[in-house]
Amino acid sequence: MTAGIIGLGLIGGSMGLALQNTKLIKKVVGLDNNVTHCEEALRLGLVHEIVNFEDIKKCDVIFLATPVDAIIAIMQSLADIDAGTTLIDLGSTKEEIVKNTPETLRKNFIPAHPMTGTEKFGPSAAFATLYNGGVVVICKSKEVEDIHLTRAVQIFSHIGMKIFFMNPKEHDCHTSYISHMPHALSYALANSVMRQEDPKSILILAGGGFRDMSRVAKSSPVMWSNVFKQNRKNVLEAIKNFQTELEKCRIMVEEQNWDELEDWMKNATTLHKIL
Amino acid sequence: MTAGIIGLGLIGGSMGLALQNTKLIKKVVGLDNNVTHCEEALRLGLVHEIVNFEDIKKCDVIFLATPVDAIIAIMQSLADIDAGTTLIDLGSTKEEIVKNTPETLRKNFIPAHPMTGTEKFGPSAAFATLYNGGVVVICKSKEVEDIHLTRAVQIFSHIGMKIFFMNPKEHDCHTSYISHMPHALSYALANSVMRQEDPKSILILAGGGFRDMSRVAKSSPVMWSNVFKQNRKNVLEAIKNFQTELEKCRIMVEEQNWDELEDWMKNATTLHKIL
Repeated sequence: MTAGIIGLGLIGGSMGLALQNTKLIKKVVGLDNNVTHCEEALRLGLVHEIVNFEDIKKCDVIFLATPVDAIIAIMQSLADIDAGTTLIDLGSTKEEIVKNTPETLRKNFIPAHPMTGTEKFGPSAAFATLYNGGVVVICKSKEVEDIHLTRAVQIFSHIGMKIFFMNPKEHDCHTSYISHMPHALSYALANSVMRQEDPKSILILAGGGFRDMSRVAKSSPVMWSNVFKQNRKNVLEAIKNFQTELEKCRIMVEEQNWDELEDWMKNATTLHKIL
Repeated sequence: MTAGIIGLGLIGGSMGLALQNTKLIKKVVGLDNNVTHCEEALRLGLVHEIVNFEDIKKCDVIFLATPVDAIIAIMQSLADIDAGTTLIDLGSTKEEIVKNTPETLRKNFIPAHPMTGTEKFGPSAAFATLYNGGVVVICKSKEVEDIHLTRAVQIFSHIGMKIFFMNPKEHDCHTSYISHMPHALSYALANSVMRQEDPKSILILAGGGFRDMSRVAKSSPVMWSNVFKQNRKNVLEAIKNFQTELEKCRIMVEEQNWDELEDWMKNATTLHKIL
C-alpha cells in the first residue's frame, strides 16, 4: 500500500515517520505548499519522496494534515480520486469538514482527529512516536464504505492509537473543552504576563506549573485561529463556561469567602479521579 | 548543624530528604500537627526523628513548611528562640508573613520561597530532588544578621537551588502572575469540565495539553485557599488582567476577527522567547 500526505508539519511529518515503521505501508510520499518544508521533510526522512498533486492522487491512502481551512479547500480538488482510494483528514475540527465534503468523496472519506500533538510545529517538530499510545477520534459517516473504514482502523491501530467513534457534533463540542478552549487560556495567560511592566523578572520565577500552563501558547497561531474559526460556536460556549467559573473564584476571593473557595477547589480536584 | 522542620508534607518532607543529602546537616528532626503524617514521615525517612515543639526550638536551623496562615501563627510561638537559631519559612506568600514576624525574630528570620513543587501533597509526595535545579526567592530584611543569611544561602545552594533576592512586595506581585493566578485558571478549567453533562466522555479525549493545564488543579485546596487569602490583592489584580485578555479573545472569536486573533496568538508566543 502507498500513502500520500498533504501537509508535512508536526502532524503530517510524524504520520510519515509512523507509517514507515508499520508493515502496512510500503511507500510514503508527500507534498506541502511550502517548498522549504518539502526539502526539510525529505532531508529528515519524513517521506520517501516529494511528489506533485496529481501523483498524490494515485496513492492508496491520502492523509490531509494541513490547517483545517486548507483541508476543506484541498478536498474539493480531490473530488475525482479513484473509488478505491482512502482519504483521511487529521484536522482538529470535524463538523465543518464533514459538511463540506464533496458528494463524490463521502464513500471513501474518513474524518479523523488524533488527540495528540505538541506545541511545536513544522517538519522539524515531527517524530515517529507522536501517535503511539494516543487516542484518535473517527467520525464515520453512514455513507462510508467498509473497505475504507477497515483500512483506516488498521492504520491507526498499527501506529499505536486507541480508536473512539464519535459523531462530528459531539467531537467538536468535547474538543472545545478538552483542547480548543484550554489553548485560548494558555494564550491569554501568556499575553497577560507579557503585558506586565517587566515580564522578564516575572518569568525568572517560573516553575513547572507555569511552564505547563503556558506551553501550548507556543502552538501555531495560523493553525489555532483556523480551529477557532471552524469551531466558533463551541469555542465561544466553552470560553463562556470557563469565564463563569473563574468569575466565581474572583468573587470568592474579593468577598473573602475562604471556606467556599476551598470547596470550589476541592470540586476541581475530583476531575483527576476520572482523568 | 541540626535542622528542624515544622510541617512534613511535600515541601517540608522533601526538604528533610534534601538536607540529609548535604554535608551541612548532621541531623534532621521534624514535627507535624497530623500524627499520621509524623508516622509516615518517619517511616519514609523524611526526618531522622519526630520531636516535640520545645525540641524543635533547640535546632540550629528551623524550617516552617506549613500552609501560610499556620506559618504566621507558629512564628508567634517561636518568638523566644535563641539568637543563634536561623528561622526559614518556605511559604508561597511573603508580604503578610514579613509584616507579622515578631520583633524579636527579625534578626534571625529568612523569608524564602522555593519556586518548585508538584500537584501532590502530604509526606508520601516528598522526594529528595524536588529543590534541585529550582529557583528560590529570598526576601532579606534590613534587620537580618549576616550569620543567618549566610547559613540560608549555603543551605539553599547546597540543595541545588538558584537564589534570587527580591523584596516581599515584588515577590507577591510576581508570584500572583507566575503561580497563584495560574492555579485559579487550572481549578476553573477543571470545574468548567466537571460541570458539563458528561465529563467522562470529554476526558476520554484528554491529550497532553489538557493534562498539563489541569495538573495543578490537583493541588491542596487548603494550601491554595490560604495563599489566595494572604495574597488577595495581587491575586485579584492578576485574575482581572487575565480576564481582560480572555475577553479580548472571546470578542475576536464572536466578531470573527481572525487576523486580529492570529496576531493576538502571535504576541502570546513571544513569551517563550524569554521563558
